Amino acid sequence: MADIDDRMAFLLEADRLKSVIRATRLVDGSRAENSAEHSWHLTLFAMVLAPHAPEGVRIDRVVRMLILHDLVEIDAGDAPIFGKTDAQAEAELAAADRIFALLPKPQAAEFRALWDEFEAAETPDAIFAKALDRFQPPNLNLANGGGSWSDYDVTEAQVRTRVGPGIARGAPDLWSWLSPRIARFFAA
Amino acid sequence: MADIDDRMAFLLEADRLKSVIRATRLVDGSRAENSAEHSWHLTLFAMVLAPHAPEGVRIDRVVRMLILHDLVEIDAGDAPIFGKTDAQAEAELAAADRIFALLPKPQAAEFRALWDEFEAAETPDAIFAKALDRFQPPNLNLANGGGSWSDYDVTEAQVRTRVGPGIARGAPDLWSWLSPRIARFFAA
Repeated sequence: MADIDDRMAFLLEADRLKSVIRATRLVDGSRAENSAEHSWHLTLFAMVLAPHAPEGVRIDRVVRMLILHDLVEIDAGDAPIFGKTDAQAEAELAAADRIFALLPKPQAAEFRALWDEFEAAETPDAIFAKALDRFQPPNLNLANGGGSWSDYDVTEAQVRTRVGPGIARGAPDLWSWLSPRIARFFAA
Repeated sequence: MADIDDRMAFLLEADRLKSVIRATRLVDGSRAENSAEHSWHLTLFAMVLAPHAPEGVRIDRVVRMLILHDLVEIDAGDAPIFGKTDAQAEAELAAADRIFALLPKPQAAEFRALWDEFEAAETPDAIFAKALDRFQPPNLNLANGGGSWSDYDVTEAQVRTRVGPGIARGAPDLWSWLSPRIARFFAA
């Protein structure tokens, strides 16, 4: 049962992701989103928007990446995409080293490989997963009247520069749908 | 793009699961868990504990079920397993009718079938998914010093009656691991 001890230590450590607070607010605007519920929401985005994934994307692998993608924030905190630094990237690597190593070795290697693949954003699965991670926050902001855009005085050009390429690359249909909505929001 | 409108309406409605509060507290005891972050945690339990799933269980289907399993609580609220009523079960069915119907028809049917399968707990995938849903809360309670057991004056016999059979049926290894820990907690 030693391996269950290790797996459970990892799962209880992962619980801390529920206390990592993001810049984005919930749809009802009542509070900031945390990274654990954000991760759940993204897995649902992947299931629901699967028909708009480019050909060849394997949704079950995308879902696995999204379940794991933010775990490093337990140590490194959430870095809003409006300002990720080299220091942040280094902190995330160190966090990945520590956190995945809590697991039995073969599983640690498997999970780390999935996280590395997500971060590198070079495979079709990772490119789609990253696109969803960019696509979800603007939709919360649009729904709650501006959210983190208003909080941080973000301009339309900044939004387009920072989320547009990633969404357009990994999920062109979703960018075609979102882009005019962003335009209408900032024109209002 | 009409189908994206419908899928996004569903995804924004699903955001409300982040505001459904459960009886269980986080590992650090700081606050109650919500059903969205609970759902994420369970998907991670499924990935991590996959080597202890009975033969024939397809983890990717288990993960999909767990992503969806609590959505009905948006309308019906969380029913602690210490007291689920017929009225609650009816409310959950009505919620499933309303919420999944926000999606385009074929996807609504697919998601509803997965949720029905989870609720029925008759297939190997659903039985394992249900076992994880029973297995996670006791582990949070053990980690945070009693949690919802202390809050609701639950006895060891009640815990065993209410979570034991479901865990033992779907994940015998995990019940063998958990059962002595519950005994030690209540003996202390």
